[in-house]
Amino acid sequence: MPCMAHLLGVASLVLGEAGWVPCEVTEDMAVAALLHDAVEDEGGWPRLRDIEAKFGSAVAKIVEGCSDSFEEDSAKKASWEERKRAYVERLWNEPEGTLLVSAADKLYNARAILEDYRRIGPEVWKRFQRGRDEQLFYFNELIKVFRAKCPDWRIVQEFERTVRELERISSEESR
Amino acid sequence: MPCMAHLLGVASLVLGEAGWVPCEVTEDMAVAALLHDAVEDEGGWPRLRDIEAKFGSAVAKIVEGCSDSFEEDSAKKASWEERKRAYVERLWNEPEGTLLVSAADKLYNARAILEDYRRIGPEVWKRFQRGRDEQLFYFNELIKVFRAKCPDWRIVQEFERTVRELERISSEESR
Repeated sequence: MPCMAHLLGVASLVLGEAGWVPCEVTEDMAVAALLHDAVEDEGGWPRLRDIEAKFGSAVAKIVEGCSDSFEEDSAKKASWEERKRAYVERLWNEPEGTLLVSAADKLYNARAILEDYRRIGPEVWKRFQRGRDEQLFYFNELIKVFRAKCPDWRIVQEFERTVRELERISSEESR
Repeated sequence: MPCMAHLLGVASLVLGEAGWVPCEVTEDMAVAALLHDAVEDEGGWPRLRDIEAKFGSAVAKIVEGCSDSFEEDSAKKASWEERKRAYVERLWNEPEGTLLVSAADKLYNARAILEDYRRIGPEVWKRFQRGRDEQLFYFNELIKVFRAKCPDWRIVQEFERTVRELERISSEESR
């Protein structure tokens, strides 16, 4: 259920930016949003090839850009730090469609953490492989890329606003 | 596109409340979220009967509770005020599933207005049949029902927080 909520939510955010991004928001971007976790969560490269065969190379390119692991065997995944660093580095060279799906993905996640934080506080970090400081560091690295590449996008500003609020509301923790 | 973004977004919000509402979040609720505008936007009662035949009475009951008009001919719809008043009045007697889809629908709308307001300011009200004060009055009438019937729900608190922020950001207008 949380997974389905996430995929529909990211697709909704992508479609909702029509008219607010300089490029056309295409059906390929919406389909890629629905599939964006399929490669890193289960299936790796073979799954990406499936997606290319079934949905075309435009969808597959976006899904590739939004994946932080291509390992078929999830036990062989690189460390959290390595995967996130590689994701951010690659994002610098991605086109608008991938940036849009990525921003929607990260905005959904930041909002979900913020809403849960309001209810359960620091407990929320236990759901992740890393704690508050690492999560916020990762979000801020992403903000650097979005700010450099598409600073005027509404969804980028909403992502930054959400991360700032998450930093503020959890700031007692870092003292 | 905005319509599809809305329907996926409401379904996502409904699924995302699993574990945060006292009832089970069912597939019927998610399907009803995807269909919640079908009756009031196009089709009226005959469309509701279609939905009942295809998706069952549980889905149809929720869609009915989330509709503010059942006129087949949209030229014959009652006034905005009458439709909204009837919707709010009926909501007092609706069960949890309908309250959840309704809260998700209204939260999506309030967030969309707030985000657009941040970009284009008071221009945003021109998209609707009524202006700032009427829209905020309607949201506040809904908040009264949600507060009385399900005050502890996370989505209800997020809806109220969003409406308060929309009131604050647009407060200059009412002077």
